[in-house]
Amino acid sequence: MTNLSDRANAAAEELRVIFDFFQTYRKDVVDEDVVADLTFGNPHEMPLPELVETLKTHIEPKRVDWFAYKTSEEEPRKAVAAALGKELNLPFAPEDIAMTQGAFGAIALAFTLLMDPGDECILPVPGWFCYTTILRAQNSVPVTVPLLDDSFNLDIDAIERAITPRTRIVVVNSPHNPTGVVYSREHLTELAAMLERKSAEFGRPIFILSDEPYRRIRFDGVPFTSPAEVYPYTLIDYSYGKILLAPGLRFGYLAICPNMPGEFRAELSQLAVSTQVAQGWGFPDAPMQYAVADLEKLSIDIDALQAKRNRMHDALTQWGYNMTKPAGTFYLWGKAPGGDAVSFTQALAKHGVYVMPGTLLDRPADFRICLTANEGMIEACLPFFEEFAE
Amino acid sequence: MTNLSDRANAAAEELRVIFDFFQTYRKDVVDEDVVADLTFGNPHEMPLPELVETLKTHIEPKRVDWFAYKTSEEEPRKAVAAALGKELNLPFAPEDIAMTQGAFGAIALAFTLLMDPGDECILPVPGWFCYTTILRAQNSVPVTVPLLDDSFNLDIDAIERAITPRTRIVVVNSPHNPTGVVYSREHLTELAAMLERKSAEFGRPIFILSDEPYRRIRFDGVPFTSPAEVYPYTLIDYSYGKILLAPGLRFGYLAICPNMPGEFRAELSQLAVSTQVAQGWGFPDAPMQYAVADLEKLSIDIDALQAKRNRMHDALTQWGYNMTKPAGTFYLWGKAPGGDAVSFTQALAKHGVYVMPGTLLDRPADFRICLTANEGMIEACLPFFEEFAE
Repeated sequence: MTNLSDRANAAAEELRVIFDFFQTYRKDVVDEDVVADLTFGNPHEMPLPELVETLKTHIEPKRVDWFAYKTSEEEPRKAVAAALGKELNLPFAPEDIAMTQGAFGAIALAFTLLMDPGDECILPVPGWFCYTTILRAQNSVPVTVPLLDDSFNLDIDAIERAITPRTRIVVVNSPHNPTGVVYSREHLTELAAMLERKSAEFGRPIFILSDEPYRRIRFDGVPFTSPAEVYPYTLIDYSYGKILLAPGLRFGYLAICPNMPGEFRAELSQLAVSTQVAQGWGFPDAPMQYAVADLEKLSIDIDALQAKRNRMHDALTQWGYNMTKPAGTFYLWGKAPGGDAVSFTQALAKHGVYVMPGTLLDRPADFRICLTANEGMIEACLPFFEEFAE
Repeated sequence: MTNLSDRANAAAEELRVIFDFFQTYRKDVVDEDVVADLTFGNPHEMPLPELVETLKTHIEPKRVDWFAYKTSEEEPRKAVAAALGKELNLPFAPEDIAMTQGAFGAIALAFTLLMDPGDECILPVPGWFCYTTILRAQNSVPVTVPLLDDSFNLDIDAIERAITPRTRIVVVNSPHNPTGVVYSREHLTELAAMLERKSAEFGRPIFILSDEPYRRIRFDGVPFTSPAEVYPYTLIDYSYGKILLAPGLRFGYLAICPNMPGEFRAELSQLAVSTQVAQGWGFPDAPMQYAVADLEKLSIDIDALQAKRNRMHDALTQWGYNMTKPAGTFYLWGKAPGGDAVSFTQALAKHGVYVMPGTLLDRPADFRICLTANEGMIEACLPFFEEFAE
């Protein structure tokens, strides 16, 4: 397709395998009764009642300018700075917080703020399937580096080898989609030391974009360290779409690490506003901004999610599946029996059980299970997993 | 500022004069009691009660996937295709409609779909102040062409001279911000003929982006023609933020002219989805998508707006101001007494009356009045306009 822009075509090409999967999914799953939908991080139970009540409260106009233009408003910035500061033990100021339309918007914002055409961004794989699409639409260059095979930790040596003078950003996603790994403080400190060395070598900082939408979705009390705690040139993106299991409500933020040298911190804060305007007025809807302080306190039931994780992991492992036991996120990640994710997922789909083939995540022998399915779905799908075990 | 990307800096530079004005405005106007705020298209009366009721209705979840990921959903696309088709007498299909976060998102989407870095977009001036910011963030090139002096019609000969092999888009904004002009069918047909000729010359179509957020805000029964009615290579962007006077709710659309050759039409429709994903999941929040069909029927009181236009225009004209009589939009446009918009607007501001200096619109001798001020503000500000008349 050459009638439209090269970049729109390049972005589409990166998304093609997901797009095709999604079209089929929409037809076969969303519009049909299925046994179990274990694909995307979408809700399969009614929304939290407190979420609905909070939204209704903040739809009610209290002033004439209730639905006037909003940028990053002072109140939500204060609420986020306080909550995030407490969570990470870092002194965020309200000016460090850019209110965005979800983590998606925050990621696109970070890329535009830091990268010009031809600049490079390092992406560990397997990983989330939209970074490359966003980069290509911006004429920036994704550079993929495989995670370590067994631990799914970052391959810090390989990342170092992939760094060039054009490298602007290394993306770190913890808790990690799809493996569920939560990186230790020690591991991130090692990464930070390498990036400090390489930044000094090139005379300009390489940034970490810490993609943390699953930050609060962790099991067994595993601790969390943000790269921002150990590396000053860090931007954090966050979405409320996971913790509230409501990705159709677009709100999240980009946060600037307060340990960043003041000049960078101030420039990022100032340029975020105009860059969000340039993205297409990339600020959350007015009611979402009013709701942030209240919604900061809400969460889906993490214990119930952990129970689903245990049930699924233990059952599949018992039948011989080679699965990760995730420390966080919505996902179980594992080897497809037979080694071909597409055959395996299609065989399951014939029985109304839908999982995500690893082809969508650059790993055609693996597959991903999403635990946002309800308990009924999880019980109902297990016999089919048993049937297709090796 | 060179620590961040060149493009983020270039986008900020385009917005600087507006940004500085807005910072002062926010401090002096939004947070204070003023006599009259006649600056931005923001509400100064409580929102439409039907708007609030409709939002509350659609916040109430009716299915488990109520707040699941939404792209351009089938129901709002159908509703828009039907309503817009009736309005413009063109056979839009649901697939021609991309649901966006307001006109801002639709404009950014159109630019990415059609333009690569270095490609050029022709912008009539004076005009809306954010096109250039969006283009610079995308590494595309704004090319400004002045409107005709007296009529504020497009200068079709000057546009023709500005066209190069890199020209991809000509922006047409009718009803026009800030002049209030509504272009006639005859005038647009002339533009279309020139663009057809130039497109043939270069062997590829030059597109019109028809920026129509004020399409339904017209006075005295003046008819409206969309460029889409006379030129097949037209994309229409629209926002519900004007007709509902609720710009803090982000929803609108990009519509593909159904007369466009099928190959282009299909490509645009298909690439819109992935490009919106790449923008940062640029689709409206779930509740807004459910609400579209209902909100299509709502409007602020256009007769009341027309009465405010008449009152303001007649008063100022009587005191010797040289003002346009707008056929549409929220705005009155005119010459600043003394010929210096900044001095004039600052003098008014000392009395608590805020208007927009033409410096924000590339016309430092002119000024803009926004009629979204309430009737009390309009009555209260008139004595100060009388005082500062020449």
